[in-house]
Amino acid sequence: MGLMNSNKPEPFSAPEVIAIKRDRGELTDAQIDWFVDAYVRNVIAEEQMSAMAMAILLNGMNRREIVRWTQSYINSGETMDWSKLGRPTADKHSTGGVGDKITLPLAPLVAACGVSVPQLSGRGLGHTGGTLDKLESISGWRAKLSNQEMFDVLAQTGAVICAASETLAPADRRIYALRDVTATVESIPLISASIMSKKIAEGTGALVLDVKVGSGAFMKTVEQATELASTMVTIGNDAGVKTRALLTAMDVPLGRTAGNALEVQEALDVLAGGGPSDVVELTVLLANEMIDAAGIKPTKEPQTALTDGSAMDVWRKMISQQGGDVNAPLPKSKESHTVVAQSDGYLTKLDALSVGIAAWRLGAGRARKEDSVQAGAGVTWSATQGDRVTKGQELFTLHTDDPARIELALETLMNGFEIGEQSEIKDRFPLVIDRIV
Amino acid sequence: MGLMNSNKPEPFSAPEVIAIKRDRGELTDAQIDWFVDAYVRNVIAEEQMSAMAMAILLNGMNRREIVRWTQSYINSGETMDWSKLGRPTADKHSTGGVGDKITLPLAPLVAACGVSVPQLSGRGLGHTGGTLDKLESISGWRAKLSNQEMFDVLAQTGAVICAASETLAPADRRIYALRDVTATVESIPLISASIMSKKIAEGTGALVLDVKVGSGAFMKTVEQATELASTMVTIGNDAGVKTRALLTAMDVPLGRTAGNALEVQEALDVLAGGGPSDVVELTVLLANEMIDAAGIKPTKEPQTALTDGSAMDVWRKMISQQGGDVNAPLPKSKESHTVVAQSDGYLTKLDALSVGIAAWRLGAGRARKEDSVQAGAGVTWSATQGDRVTKGQELFTLHTDDPARIELALETLMNGFEIGEQSEIKDRFPLVIDRIV
Repeated sequence: MGLMNSNKPEPFSAPEVIAIKRDRGELTDAQIDWFVDAYVRNVIAEEQMSAMAMAILLNGMNRREIVRWTQSYINSGETMDWSKLGRPTADKHSTGGVGDKITLPLAPLVAACGVSVPQLSGRGLGHTGGTLDKLESISGWRAKLSNQEMFDVLAQTGAVICAASETLAPADRRIYALRDVTATVESIPLISASIMSKKIAEGTGALVLDVKVGSGAFMKTVEQATELASTMVTIGNDAGVKTRALLTAMDVPLGRTAGNALEVQEALDVLAGGGPSDVVELTVLLANEMIDAAGIKPTKEPQTALTDGSAMDVWRKMISQQGGDVNAPLPKSKESHTVVAQSDGYLTKLDALSVGIAAWRLGAGRARKEDSVQAGAGVTWSATQGDRVTKGQELFTLHTDDPARIELALETLMNGFEIGEQSEIKDRFPLVIDRIV
Repeated sequence: MGLMNSNKPEPFSAPEVIAIKRDRGELTDAQIDWFVDAYVRNVIAEEQMSAMAMAILLNGMNRREIVRWTQSYINSGETMDWSKLGRPTADKHSTGGVGDKITLPLAPLVAACGVSVPQLSGRGLGHTGGTLDKLESISGWRAKLSNQEMFDVLAQTGAVICAASETLAPADRRIYALRDVTATVESIPLISASIMSKKIAEGTGALVLDVKVGSGAFMKTVEQATELASTMVTIGNDAGVKTRALLTAMDVPLGRTAGNALEVQEALDVLAGGGPSDVVELTVLLANEMIDAAGIKPTKEPQTALTDGSAMDVWRKMISQQGGDVNAPLPKSKESHTVVAQSDGYLTKLDALSVGIAAWRLGAGRARKEDSVQAGAGVTWSATQGDRVTKGQELFTLHTDDPARIELALETLMNGFEIGEQSEIKDRFPLVIDRIV
């Protein structure tokens, strides 16, 4: 407690600064800069940062405080610079959902249209998947690149998807781990700072945020999602990154697959000009937003780049450059189990959270950061909400290497869908709920 | 973070339990028992307990939760039992104030009236003094006794004042240290649990709480103090300790002295049948409350025991048994400085906090737990609020071994009093503000 590693006098004391936020006060820029920096220097102890995180979660921060808190994360590490590329850059960040493989086709697609995409991605935790976990189902593919390797892949292919270096916003890395064990994750200021510090330090010129709303998302209501999106848009623009956000539906899972290799296959379908309509629609929408935010006229229309094979070409180069074997078959799970429709009707409910948890329980996700994931595990479905189904039709297939997991997954999945007589769905979100600039 | 020392499965996870309080929920008895026990077992990390402490501070606890949280502290260590004494026991706890030396004459006084007093006391931190620091100004006196020694002193003299053993409510000891560095001290549930767990584990049959209110006290308003007092009375009675509380004034310092040896001398004056009237009045009031709560008819009236020398006899035996030389002169500071009245009039203001901080700055108190205190340092004053003063009259004497401290002490003290033309004082608390049973 209260470790002191330096003889230089500190301008504040940790309890004094924590008490300001505890008492609903505003922290000054100097207090914020000091608090995060002193934490990184181990002058502020873990228990002091967690008390502060709880005070922030419960008492909030105003926009100025959030912008400065984010900047203090960025200042804790290095920042990247892509000006030598000679092309505009744009990135996308999704707050995470079930079946959300959009990054996979999107990054090469935007590159094919003339905008470079330096995409730092993460791993999954809980019921939402992680882009790096998905790509690691490709034989040989490496998530971890040096800064020089990242530059080279980006310069040569137009897109790169890799893990964030440990030197990028290291304060966020430590605070995120701390929040995870202290029930201080669900705070809009802290979520915003965590996401935006990485994206700003990454050096992208433009950023499109895909803020998911609904049962399968972190934000369950449009109000929460709007607050998060507008906070992040403010932070980004304040830092000189052209930032905008789409609020998109996550009451229903995206596409027809949830699981690592299963989602890579669906991404390949989209890059080949096919794939589920919702995935294609959202991919093209986000591509247009990224190109527009980057401020250029695209070399071709995204829809064209999907059908003429140019997005697929970027994908194959990008994956190969990171060691991935684009010709190797994707891993398949050892076991599968199908669920058939018990009656004729319409699929009136397909709950994103239930599908996500089922995929997670089958081995597609991890409960703890140390856990590994099964490349082939997950859930595929043949119909989505609103579709007509007939008795005996195969609705779901459960994929896993471990048959003992099937029962547990079915428990969740069976409560996650309903077959009814009406085709009309009440209270369903449109794919794009709102756009925040 | 998230240390796991045992292979036995835990019934809860720390983030899950913290999240309940974060979201303004009620913790179950089982969750409270587990959380404190798991912390003591190092299964819950410091940063998890501090996040919980902040959530409790900001979102509160109901009476059932507070009673159980207190019990969990008690369960973390041993409890004492005085039934072999064959006499009723009573203790007093003050929430701390400036010049509050009441424990010193009170414990031997109550013993002289037929009730045994097992008094576990603490040290001072900040501007309020600690009973043990005061007694340590007596040559040879030992604060630390074994349980057997404590029993022997109590059996042979009727009273004992000593430090709490480390085996008594050890969870509180650790959580208190944690709260001190995480700005989570100012929480009525946590303050109540800290005070009451020690007093209940100490095994006293009756307990009188002296909850101080005013500038020199922890609780600045009657509302806060009432809440704290009634919470602690509930906890005590729930645990079978006959508990009552007096709310008493701490806008003005008690008596005429603040400082360790200075306060011992004032206590000796009271035990000799003299002393300042407010100290005598409060000592006798609390003695009557303790005797009444113990449920016996006293062997003599407290007022009598002060004037007939019997309380002084108990004091001398009690101090001697703990190694103190009752004949040795009390230590005196090397330097002193007097402040005289600049005009005729009435002392219309004498602020407890200012006097306390001045005494602290002169060396009577400590800024950090590791600091030592000066036995002779402190402030004495010749007049209290409402008294007539004349120009040139010595108002204050500052005592210290370190003349460099005088200027800093004066800075505070000079703002802490006022001489006016009106004898009437507005907004002054009566000595006893309320009584809560």
